[in-house]
Amino acid sequence: MLTLYQDPRSGNCYKAVLTAAHLGIPLRTVDIDVTSGQTRQPEFLAKNPNGRVPILEFEDGRHPESNAIIWYLAEGSRLIPTDKFARAQMLQWMFFEQYSHEPYIAVARFWMVFATKEQLRQKEHLIPEWHAKGNAALGVMEGHLKNNDWFVGDACSLADIALYAYTHCAEEGGFNLKQYPALSDWLSRVAATKGFAPMGASR
Amino acid sequence: MLTLYQDPRSGNCYKAVLTAAHLGIPLRTVDIDVTSGQTRQPEFLAKNPNGRVPILEFEDGRHPESNAIIWYLAEGSRLIPTDKFARAQMLQWMFFEQYSHEPYIAVARFWMVFATKEQLRQKEHLIPEWHAKGNAALGVMEGHLKNNDWFVGDACSLADIALYAYTHCAEEGGFNLKQYPALSDWLSRVAATKGFAPMGASR
Repeated sequence: MLTLYQDPRSGNCYKAVLTAAHLGIPLRTVDIDVTSGQTRQPEFLAKNPNGRVPILEFEDGRHPESNAIIWYLAEGSRLIPTDKFARAQMLQWMFFEQYSHEPYIAVARFWMVFATKEQLRQKEHLIPEWHAKGNAALGVMEGHLKNNDWFVGDACSLADIALYAYTHCAEEGGFNLKQYPALSDWLSRVAATKGFAPMGASR
Repeated sequence: MLTLYQDPRSGNCYKAVLTAAHLGIPLRTVDIDVTSGQTRQPEFLAKNPNGRVPILEFEDGRHPESNAIIWYLAEGSRLIPTDKFARAQMLQWMFFEQYSHEPYIAVARFWMVFATKEQLRQKEHLIPEWHAKGNAALGVMEGHLKNNDWFVGDACSLADIALYAYTHCAEEGGFNLKQYPALSDWLSRVAATKGFAPMGASR
């Protein structure tokens, strides 16, 4: 049995839960509160020296990094295209998610929803940059989704799961998704897929 | 023939050149000056709406995102482990590179080396954070390399190429690599691999 160390409020952790739900893979979950400092304690750092959730743990090893975890869970399944070019396109969107999307959209939500008022005050000057760069990423997604139902090919893949995780709750970080009609339709399509599970769902 | 749109000073572009050199894949290169604003022009945005180099172009399509490009170039080669667990470990380090390493180590070098003095002045207040988070990433790498010659398994893989790209020139961004002896030995090992090419090498 695989164990997922997760904060159920984290989109990065949700990616693993959603992939496992799609594929019917049983996961044991251990909840970690990332706002408690637990991920900076020696016991946790022994599991992941980079001090972040999620971690997927096996009998003989473990993986951190959400997008590597979902790749591992989904290898050989319908969530990864069999065509070489399409597979690289899927990874392209997954790297886009970690570089151009998550650092603004997830980070804005984190500080605006889960931090204390005092903590948020110290970060407040960064909100305009988070919103500018996050909206740029949402704009790139909208441009693609105007002409495509899915990020790669004609079905839901890991690219959709990775990008869904923080996009569907972006309004909590002050983004206005009504500006992105094609993206909003895509969110509904993902939520209607067979095997879908909402964020924070107990398993 | 594949075409790589690149800035020869960019580590993200160098990853593609280095992977192609290792595998003997011929690449036509088109140089783009990222400091000139060229990547924000409509002609370039039509190739990559995310406005970034590198782009790898085929007859019938193109890929942005450096780590997706090197995955595409290397599929089926010795640079990607055949074992499923090791392959996910490789991707884990590649996502680590894009999320926890590049945004601090490459960004510090970019502003300190390639920006004008006036541009750097506007970013100067960010240098302590770049150095703190960049050194944290180098520390995670050092911890791994104390016990391992390579990031995954017993040979150079895409994880080493992705992490080499900006680590080997990190001192240009104000990092002191002498603090990381295992990492420094690994840099020498990568530079000694068969098929190695230095950054900015004409092909």
